[in-house]
Amino acid sequence: MRNLALLTDFYQLTMMNGYLKHGLHQDTVVFDLFFRKNPCKSSYTIIAGIEQVIDYIENLKFTEEDLNYLRGLGFDDDFLKVVKDFKFSGTIYAVPEGSIMFPSEPILRVKASCFEAQLIETALLNIINFQSLIATKASRICEAAEGDPVFEFGLRRAQGPDAGIYGARAAVIGGCSSTSNVLAGKMFDIPVVGTQAHSWVQSFDTELEAFRAYAATYPDNCLLLVDTYDTLKSGLPNAITVFNELRSKGYEPKGIRIDSGDIAYLSKEARKILNAAGFEGVSIVASSDLDEEIIYSLKIQKAAVNGWGVGTNLITSKGCPALGGVYKLSAMEKDGELLSKIKISENPEKITNPGYKKVVRIYHADDHNAQGDLIMLEDETIDTSKPLTIFHPTYTWKTKTFTNYRIREMLAPLYIDGKLVAPRKTVKEIKAYVAEELDSLWPEYKRMIRPQLYKVDLSEKLWKLKNDMVSQYREATKRGS
Amino acid sequence: MRNLALLTDFYQLTMMNGYLKHGLHQDTVVFDLFFRKNPCKSSYTIIAGIEQVIDYIENLKFTEEDLNYLRGLGFDDDFLKVVKDFKFSGTIYAVPEGSIMFPSEPILRVKASCFEAQLIETALLNIINFQSLIATKASRICEAAEGDPVFEFGLRRAQGPDAGIYGARAAVIGGCSSTSNVLAGKMFDIPVVGTQAHSWVQSFDTELEAFRAYAATYPDNCLLLVDTYDTLKSGLPNAITVFNELRSKGYEPKGIRIDSGDIAYLSKEARKILNAAGFEGVSIVASSDLDEEIIYSLKIQKAAVNGWGVGTNLITSKGCPALGGVYKLSAMEKDGELLSKIKISENPEKITNPGYKKVVRIYHADDHNAQGDLIMLEDETIDTSKPLTIFHPTYTWKTKTFTNYRIREMLAPLYIDGKLVAPRKTVKEIKAYVAEELDSLWPEYKRMIRPQLYKVDLSEKLWKLKNDMVSQYREATKRGS
Repeated sequence: MRNLALLTDFYQLTMMNGYLKHGLHQDTVVFDLFFRKNPCKSSYTIIAGIEQVIDYIENLKFTEEDLNYLRGLGFDDDFLKVVKDFKFSGTIYAVPEGSIMFPSEPILRVKASCFEAQLIETALLNIINFQSLIATKASRICEAAEGDPVFEFGLRRAQGPDAGIYGARAAVIGGCSSTSNVLAGKMFDIPVVGTQAHSWVQSFDTELEAFRAYAATYPDNCLLLVDTYDTLKSGLPNAITVFNELRSKGYEPKGIRIDSGDIAYLSKEARKILNAAGFEGVSIVASSDLDEEIIYSLKIQKAAVNGWGVGTNLITSKGCPALGGVYKLSAMEKDGELLSKIKISENPEKITNPGYKKVVRIYHADDHNAQGDLIMLEDETIDTSKPLTIFHPTYTWKTKTFTNYRIREMLAPLYIDGKLVAPRKTVKEIKAYVAEELDSLWPEYKRMIRPQLYKVDLSEKLWKLKNDMVSQYREATKRGS
Repeated sequence: MRNLALLTDFYQLTMMNGYLKHGLHQDTVVFDLFFRKNPCKSSYTIIAGIEQVIDYIENLKFTEEDLNYLRGLGFDDDFLKVVKDFKFSGTIYAVPEGSIMFPSEPILRVKASCFEAQLIETALLNIINFQSLIATKASRICEAAEGDPVFEFGLRRAQGPDAGIYGARAAVIGGCSSTSNVLAGKMFDIPVVGTQAHSWVQSFDTELEAFRAYAATYPDNCLLLVDTYDTLKSGLPNAITVFNELRSKGYEPKGIRIDSGDIAYLSKEARKILNAAGFEGVSIVASSDLDEEIIYSLKIQKAAVNGWGVGTNLITSKGCPALGGVYKLSAMEKDGELLSKIKISENPEKITNPGYKKVVRIYHADDHNAQGDLIMLEDETIDTSKPLTIFHPTYTWKTKTFTNYRIREMLAPLYIDGKLVAPRKTVKEIKAYVAEELDSLWPEYKRMIRPQLYKVDLSEKLWKLKNDMVSQYREATKRGS
């Protein structure tokens, strides 16, 4: 495991040192990690990266080399002594990896000394922001592909090695069937796929020779790239020649891949030609600068594609290359009591929800459909034997009452007093959970164009707390000016 | 160093195995690494990541664990035996890291066995694509900032840990003065900066107490974040109170940071207020979802900002999150002779330049201004005592003749027969070279809006080779159909 103790913003260290110098470093604080906007025109976000958060915390230790570097930056022995003994001893609640979450909802809730809570902020955001982004993008792409397998092919355009590795992991969690990334395959036990590149075809004197050589090496897994010279005039006839040769030897060919040109036209023509030659069963894989919008449009045009290789646009989440997750102070312990904290902003959407909070999801009692979420204070309870009325935090006249319902608390303990208390999960388990989560969303929330917005309201108590605190600050600022 | 031997696409391994099975794995091939389009509306690209390419190749070795994984994927002992002994023994020419390059120009030229050349393709692209993208984006942002320092602040939104680490490196190479990323600071000996977050201000009962506490800890480096509650009504008056207190103790305050609101308005108002209070010398740093276009626009509005903290939009290169570098077969040895290879496409821009090539940059003999580039075959020479006429590869009537000129070959040996032959370089050295490179470009190539296109032509010999090969393939396809 890599030592990522220094994977933090410098201001975390200057603040930690400042807290230490003022004797505040042991003060308990609560931070919420949440995002304000779903990425990729999605109405939901799939949370990924929790397992890497665990890896990070389990390996969080400053080495002698780290301490020397910090000394060189000007930190004094007092500070270095505390940093040297650093071990995360706080409590983290988190949603299970693969959960579907919505704007403003706490995804992770860190209760720790301000010293510890500050240090880990940057890495937590880095890990959760990227993997959740890619899992969500992958989910959108798979939704557009209507159940066809989607292959993650983006390593060469990923933003560095980790982006390729963890991006492949997140893509599979979000719905991709496999990746081309061998290292990710090994690290996370996810399927890897791949056949040949144009360079293979170019390396032989003719395309036919190249196809024959490939078929000879992989007779039972023969998928041929047909667009090196001319898809319909050269690639396809040569592929069919080789497919017939394979079949005569008792092997059934797997398919063709088209990597350029007009995929709708070429795939439909290729399908006709393949069928006419008796190869109704072979697949047509497309891979040419695809994303969810192009696949959606190709599906409408009835492109005859059975599998989609998606590279750059998935692994970088082109069009929305960052999930804007933030980590905000929501409470602080004073004399053994948690005081709520708020961050004010001229922009109403940027005003944080104060207090020690939880997220409750409301389902119909009789089915698995999610009806809406409620952000509440931790000490609040819901009596499900009584009707529950929720209201929009801005347009408070917009209300909804549930009668026959059940609830689920989304946040669960991950660390308690520095001890990992949740079981580790495999990508396979997380992927299966994502499928359940997606199944709990009405199709209206999942459609490509202008999906319906999912309801996330505040409990009355939290809503009042927030409004009171905002008014209080407005008053204080007026008096101050 | 991490073991990245498996950081490759699965099809590289299936092809390598195929070449082995056909006895072709030792055949020498030549691949060019190049891109087709500059990123970020730029007219140039700064090449970065060469040092990480070296790290990758120096550490390229398959472990027992890797071999076991490959065995599990179905590769046989024949293949695993060759892979076990893998050591890169090829020759790589590359431009010096920090070079300014243009579309179609070989940046790296790999001459190696096809076995070796295929394996390293994916990692080379991954490394060069990302760092060149961020170096270029940073260069554009610094250009917009007109010499003000630009701070890289994006780690929390970077696409995974490596994107934060190598992105910070590339950002500094491209012109940023420093980063907030402590690990990047340590790894590459680049300056790190940071002061305090909103959570610091929130952690104290009042903003004034928070500012006082910060000033007490860092009296000689006091830069205060003034927008937690209200920039002009609260943050600025409190900052001035603390600045006066500092000054009375003999310290000169450093500045303020504004992280929200209208930066043009707030910075100008803040400047007036600071000046009126006798703090003409303190800086105003802005950091609120900035990019090169916003900074350009703020400069036009005469925002009173002296330093720019740029996060998400720099580290992810928002708007263009991938440089589309490719790695294409250009030649192949047959019976001791290099045969040129070409990749045909319906899209003329995607037809590759065949042959074993080099890139020559043409300068005025008397100054350092670059006049244009010529892609030529390796064995061609230019007699600089005679005039040189170059022509546009598509609009061949567009010609230009140089008389008083000198030339520079851009590609230099990096590896010869598997041995590293170039000296390792520090970020500081590379950054200084980038400054020279940028200085060699006329301002017209560097402006924000619609920069002039830099001339990249083909030598007549290469142009003819390419046209002949395209015609040949068109003929062959016609005959085939």
